[in-house]
Amino acid sequence: MAVMEFFYDFTSPYSYLASTRVEEAARRAGGEVRFRPFLLGGVFKATGNRAPVETPAKAKHMWVDLERWAKRIGVPLVMPTTFPVASILALRTALAAERQGKLVPFTHAVFRACWAEGKDIADPEVLAAVASSVGLDGPAVVAAAPEFKAVLMAQTQEAVDRGSFGAPTFFVPTARGEEMFVGNDRLEMAVEALTEGRTGHRGS
Amino acid sequence: MAVMEFFYDFTSPYSYLASTRVEEAARRAGGEVRFRPFLLGGVFKATGNRAPVETPAKAKHMWVDLERWAKRIGVPLVMPTTFPVASILALRTALAAERQGKLVPFTHAVFRACWAEGKDIADPEVLAAVASSVGLDGPAVVAAAPEFKAVLMAQTQEAVDRGSFGAPTFFVPTARGEEMFVGNDRLEMAVEALTEGRTGHRGS
Repeated sequence: MAVMEFFYDFTSPYSYLASTRVEEAARRAGGEVRFRPFLLGGVFKATGNRAPVETPAKAKHMWVDLERWAKRIGVPLVMPTTFPVASILALRTALAAERQGKLVPFTHAVFRACWAEGKDIADPEVLAAVASSVGLDGPAVVAAAPEFKAVLMAQTQEAVDRGSFGAPTFFVPTARGEEMFVGNDRLEMAVEALTEGRTGHRGS
Repeated sequence: MAVMEFFYDFTSPYSYLASTRVEEAARRAGGEVRFRPFLLGGVFKATGNRAPVETPAKAKHMWVDLERWAKRIGVPLVMPTTFPVASILALRTALAAERQGKLVPFTHAVFRACWAEGKDIADPEVLAAVASSVGLDGPAVVAAAPEFKAVLMAQTQEAVDRGSFGAPTFFVPTARGEEMFVGNDRLEMAVEALTEGRTGHRGS
């Protein structure tokens, strides 16, 4: 089965939007998704890219654009208590959750807590409660987070080495080799490539 | 009739892509398009935004993304001889062409020369030939370009004042007031807003 990799950071609202539909989209294409948390700040640093919010006119438009997308997709979206969201603890905890086979439900729960419920996911207690809600030992998995510092760095560097410069980033295996797609607004194209890669049909 | 404003710069390949379909899209929505050339470099300077090509990883992906879009839309796309394209003369000439009621055909002809035929639109002779091809007195209209320096600056500043930070930018009148959409990949949303603005229907 063709596997689409989905690199995301909890700090990225466009990653949240993509997270709400990437599995269903891949399934319709006959493929599946591999969830891969990475540190967007590390990607920006490595590539010299900047967050949209660093340009005021762009930041202002970004919130409008996000609300349009949330309405289009039909998902709740609230502004988090602080932005940018300090996501590093949540990302490391996600890797700890992955070790216990709970990466995907934990990821959805964190995105929801942050972007649908406005909770402060930088708070270890909030994070532990989120982890507990998906069947993990919340305090234990958050306490294990520091052990995953190097894994998170490696995963981030890997994405950069493969060409990523933002979030979300999708990598799709195709007949033409690996293809990269960046942005929630490129999910449809990524899924089309996944379909082609799976069927060998290159389209028109 | 609802009018969507389309701010574009010839240097912007995403503006070219949008130019090939914006009129048909607006027509389907029962509206029409007002073409408004502006200087993207001036927008970047005023807003502190940067061109995608200034970030190498982003630049590399941009060409891939452009080719995907050109294929999707079904239009030719070639890399221009030099990039970024020095578009200021072409933009001023477009305003001179507007004075003679030829802005739209001249705009399409310049975009085509640059992005479909790879011609150097910074060259006054190339530009004059393009102008002549749409029924203008080519050398005369290019010679008149310097007179439109201030108009181009004013049009650019106006877009910035209204919130623009990139190209293409669309402004659409809606029941909620003026809405802005930035990017070839937001044309569909802009047209939906145009439809709503025209019918008073706000959708779901």
